[in-house]
Amino acid sequence: MIKLKSNNAIYESLQNKRVVKLYVDDSFNNKKILELANQNGVVIEKLNRNDLTRRFGYGSQGAVAEAIPFKTYNLDNIIKCSKEVKNAVVVMLDELNDPHNLGAILRSADVFGVTAVIYKNRNEVSLNDTVATVSAGAINYVKCCEVTNLNQTIEVLKKNGFWVVGLAGEATSDLKSIPKDVPLVVVVGSEGYGISKLVRKNCDYMVKIPMSGHVSCLNASVSCAIVLYELSTRK
Amino acid sequence: MIKLKSNNAIYESLQNKRVVKLYVDDSFNNKKILELANQNGVVIEKLNRNDLTRRFGYGSQGAVAEAIPFKTYNLDNIIKCSKEVKNAVVVMLDELNDPHNLGAILRSADVFGVTAVIYKNRNEVSLNDTVATVSAGAINYVKCCEVTNLNQTIEVLKKNGFWVVGLAGEATSDLKSIPKDVPLVVVVGSEGYGISKLVRKNCDYMVKIPMSGHVSCLNASVSCAIVLYELSTRK
Repeated sequence: MIKLKSNNAIYESLQNKRVVKLYVDDSFNNKKILELANQNGVVIEKLNRNDLTRRFGYGSQGAVAEAIPFKTYNLDNIIKCSKEVKNAVVVMLDELNDPHNLGAILRSADVFGVTAVIYKNRNEVSLNDTVATVSAGAINYVKCCEVTNLNQTIEVLKKNGFWVVGLAGEATSDLKSIPKDVPLVVVVGSEGYGISKLVRKNCDYMVKIPMSGHVSCLNASVSCAIVLYELSTRK
Repeated sequence: MIKLKSNNAIYESLQNKRVVKLYVDDSFNNKKILELANQNGVVIEKLNRNDLTRRFGYGSQGAVAEAIPFKTYNLDNIIKCSKEVKNAVVVMLDELNDPHNLGAILRSADVFGVTAVIYKNRNEVSLNDTVATVSAGAINYVKCCEVTNLNQTIEVLKKNGFWVVGLAGEATSDLKSIPKDVPLVVVVGSEGYGISKLVRKNCDYMVKIPMSGHVSCLNASVSCAIVLYELSTRK
């Protein structure tokens, strides 16, 4: 079970029938949430504010939901789904597992119709409340795929017709040079270190967002959104 | 004086000769900061960790700087600067004064060569440490202009040859329809409420970023970055 503390995340999870139990404080009166919980037959337990905080810690907006963990998909699922759309785009995150960035990227991924977001499976990362909140609910709609090895995953994707494009400030080509009319993997690296060596070697293309100015780079989730926007304008 | 608690913000402010005094704890050993502070003749006071926290609160990374407030510019300055570049772009924020968003927008504004970021002057907003940190130092380079009335400001900018483009999800034209070869004001509204009625009425064009998916909108700073990217590709 995961605990959800933001009303936005709770509401989206209720809509997706993932909430098992709802704890609310005495003054909680978010009608949308209460009605949907009742409608779904979710057990609601009332606590006073102090008890709610004692039990679940700070950070709620008057309600805490126990919910079934977000579903993740395996690579076979993702490849199957990608064959159902024309020129599928999947995003691969390399060492970028900060929940804020993951949440923001899921939001853009939903907006621009990305088939899946793939990232390395690690103990410290999970589709938690922060991801759910920052994604503004997109976590319920974008397919997340946790893999153990990015390079092996790239190999499988290539065999299935994908072209792999890495994003790096020092690349010489810009986004307009990304090949058209093929399924694409867009690889986004961490803000501090970029894409790791071996993954970079496995990319078919390295591209950059042209930048002027003094600050050396854009936020990783902003860079990712710009690439997805650029790809969406070609369709 | 403002207090800076992130090492990144302290370093950029040292480079811009804005730091007046530096407080560090016993174990602080960031050489880049210490060397630059010494070089600039900044007084450094050593405190033990507890005293540093007692004095300035949590959130530092071992150092706190007292710095001269970030400089803001008046509208006349901005108009003068805009005449020195071809097809200047300025960003105007309408009711979007969350420091995280402002910081993120400053970062993109620097990367894409924006002349200035204009926003409404309010008591609760200032170019604080959060803005400085999130902007990754861009706050030292992008001209910020605080105004009392956005609509009057738009009027002045129009008289000086600017075209005003508002960003709204419900617009019918996309970013490609933004006029070329003219100075532009890009107006970004708040995430919840968008651009306010009167400001919207004063826009020459309303445009949208085409979106599919379930989540209704992008984060405001992401939307802003996408528009600035689109404009930068035309140059």
